[in-house]
Amino acid sequence: MDERFGKQLAFIVEVDKMKTVIRRTLLTNKSRRENDAEHSWHLALAAMLLLEHAENPERIDLFRVLKMALVHDLVEIYAGDTFAYDAKGNMDKAEREDASADKLFSILPEEQGHELRALWEEFDAMDTPDSLYAAAIDRLQPFILNSVTDGHTWFEGRVTRGQVLVRMDVVRRAMPSLWGYITGVIDDAVGRGIISC
Amino acid sequence: MDERFGKQLAFIVEVDKMKTVIRRTLLTNKSRRENDAEHSWHLALAAMLLLEHAENPERIDLFRVLKMALVHDLVEIYAGDTFAYDAKGNMDKAEREDASADKLFSILPEEQGHELRALWEEFDAMDTPDSLYAAAIDRLQPFILNSVTDGHTWFEGRVTRGQVLVRMDVVRRAMPSLWGYITGVIDDAVGRGIISC
Repeated sequence: MDERFGKQLAFIVEVDKMKTVIRRTLLTNKSRRENDAEHSWHLALAAMLLLEHAENPERIDLFRVLKMALVHDLVEIYAGDTFAYDAKGNMDKAEREDASADKLFSILPEEQGHELRALWEEFDAMDTPDSLYAAAIDRLQPFILNSVTDGHTWFEGRVTRGQVLVRMDVVRRAMPSLWGYITGVIDDAVGRGIISC
Repeated sequence: MDERFGKQLAFIVEVDKMKTVIRRTLLTNKSRRENDAEHSWHLALAAMLLLEHAENPERIDLFRVLKMALVHDLVEIYAGDTFAYDAKGNMDKAEREDASADKLFSILPEEQGHELRALWEEFDAMDTPDSLYAAAIDRLQPFILNSVTDGHTWFEGRVTRGQVLVRMDVVRRAMPSLWGYITGVIDDAVGRGIISC
């Protein structure tokens, strides 16, 4: 077998593990939590549909956003999913994910490994129009699922209004026209005692 | 709430059901079958990595391929997954999926529904370089998973060598350099009694 194809094949098999990295968010039917593979697909599809709500859609390259969406959580294969509101887990998150990236992306032919790693690093830095939009959708997708599952992860995590506002601030920056929707959902959840004040 | 955003939001919530459409293919750890959302993500990522093996990569627009990968199985939300080797189920597949497409894509703002439906129809027709490549990866992804799970779906479906060759023929057409890998895996599975002659 062609050596490059052999490496690509090994990587495609390895990343199947994304289907076993479990997140906090429930499916809409509340039957179970979603996993990283499902989340990445849902995020990419949402990014396709919501571009018009980005502040400057013409500055965003949706092709690059889709690639980012597909790879942005790959490092969780070895580093695990860190709950957004877990302060302790987030302290060593960067270190764990960096080691995971070294291990995972080295399976690929060198320049492909570099390409995927660069996409992930850009996503994580949120300092380009593409990555800011991708990160906003990455916050929005679980927010939407939370909004239709009685705020499951907010309630379970005893999350406060201030924490959710900080977490969602990237949506305010990248997609300001959706901020009314965001604060409406939060206020409703506060009113129902799901999110504390 | 903005009417367009309301429709997009309803669609994003509705397609969460992709996570509950179960396919035949096992995960690599054999713990369970994969679902359509996971498959769509895995397929899109594989399409990103394997483009160089397409017959004429320069004729393929990977951006369009990724969009096709993300939407190609959406109609299964109402039509269900039809097993590739189920002759009976495949008889009314087109009709079921067409009705499903009418129902699903009409949730979106009109032009977005049309865009997604056109991508799905193009994927299904396999008559453009983009859709032929996307369809080849759609065959390749479960083939790879089968190859590392003792040919689970082949054995379970009592599939013959001839049936697998017909099913995989789109890979021979779209990615001829991989045909040696395909026939090698099939011959090995025949040798082990997993695929019948």
